[in-house]
Amino acid sequence: MMHGKQLAGMIDHTQLRPEAGEEQLRQVVEEARRFGFAAVCVSPVYIGWVREQLQGSGVKACTVAGFPLGASTAAMKAMEAAEAVERGAQEVDFVAHLPALLACDKDAAAGEFARVVQAVRAVDENVTIKVIIESALLMAECDERKTRLAERRINLACRAAYEAGCDFVKTSTGFHPAGGASAAAVRLMRKHSFGLQVKASGGIRTYDDARRMIDAGAHRLGCSASAAIMEAAAKV
Amino acid sequence: MMHGKQLAGMIDHTQLRPEAGEEQLRQVVEEARRFGFAAVCVSPVYIGWVREQLQGSGVKACTVAGFPLGASTAAMKAMEAAEAVERGAQEVDFVAHLPALLACDKDAAAGEFARVVQAVRAVDENVTIKVIIESALLMAECDERKTRLAERRINLACRAAYEAGCDFVKTSTGFHPAGGASAAAVRLMRKHSFGLQVKASGGIRTYDDARRMIDAGAHRLGCSASAAIMEAAAKV
Repeated sequence: MMHGKQLAGMIDHTQLRPEAGEEQLRQVVEEARRFGFAAVCVSPVYIGWVREQLQGSGVKACTVAGFPLGASTAAMKAMEAAEAVERGAQEVDFVAHLPALLACDKDAAAGEFARVVQAVRAVDENVTIKVIIESALLMAECDERKTRLAERRINLACRAAYEAGCDFVKTSTGFHPAGGASAAAVRLMRKHSFGLQVKASGGIRTYDDARRMIDAGAHRLGCSASAAIMEAAAKV
Repeated sequence: MMHGKQLAGMIDHTQLRPEAGEEQLRQVVEEARRFGFAAVCVSPVYIGWVREQLQGSGVKACTVAGFPLGASTAAMKAMEAAEAVERGAQEVDFVAHLPALLACDKDAAAGEFARVVQAVRAVDENVTIKVIIESALLMAECDERKTRLAERRINLACRAAYEAGCDFVKTSTGFHPAGGASAAAVRLMRKHSFGLQVKASGGIRTYDDARRMIDAGAHRLGCSASAAIMEAAAKV
């Protein structure tokens, strides 16, 4: 069993729906203050406001770049991430160019990641950087015969993240039809993490989901139903 | 009945899946050349390559900005759009900040759109600019009692697009859970278009879908199954 405070400290309380407005943003900030989550993760357009609202709370302000498709150029991802840090982001979760990961093109991936990392660190060295690798996609169509391909892709994605100087590898955007986090993906990412931390996100809706990801080795969880998860945890 | 060539000239042949790699991109370019589509619409990372491949074909190179969530800042959407034009984009489809449209905040919307339009036109005056308003979202939760709200939102979105100098209003990204294009949305957008053209996109998978959107008044269609639609059209 896990202490509630410890669980809260692992959660990035997330609101990335594109229609979310002031009311929804106020709610995530209020919940984050109440439970003491690790971070609040919101769209770039809101990061300045959220950082202000979290002042003195100990909760970090987190945003995303190249989200959720990862199909903008490395230059734009780097610029978007750096601009977000200038406006107050303390953590940035960016999406990898997925075809490079599917093709196990480690140098292309590491090159892209490094551009984002360097742009961010040029503004603030202490920002936590997470790269989203869409693990369910990398592991899709990998039946038993192909589990080695899945593992190779995960390995190369993690290696690229490590070489580029990322802090975390993160499973999923939560927007890709291939699916969100799985315990199997988290275990594979831990196995090949090169010391990086692992964030599980996408489809973590209940306390049991959260528990499963932590048991698999996740250091951080991205959730929207974080308040309900905390209430369920209090009853365990 | 519609001539095949005329139908092809209304289609933006679209490949925006984040995992699409070289093979998928080659295919859309080849199909666009074969059928003579209006444009090929691809992720920003591919626009330079696609523009080169389309050289001499008469098919335009189209990309997206702030896609698909519309939740990056106006500054970043403007920069992403302008950068894409510098790399060869002849058409840019960008996503509006949706909370402004839901709240009928016309000035906020027009201000955002104008930043994108000005940034693009500063690079190339002749680029076609389409703003995606996620019409299914704007019309969702609008039951009979609330149809006036849906119409008001569509009206204000179109007015903002007109004031900002966009060329098209476009129904959908195809990524939002609220849904894609509907004939009802296209009709409403035509009614309030202020002379702008209307692009229907999202969920247009068959010739019948395409036909329905054209009958509702769409000037342009965004489709992925464009080749199948053309083959079906040839049999009508």
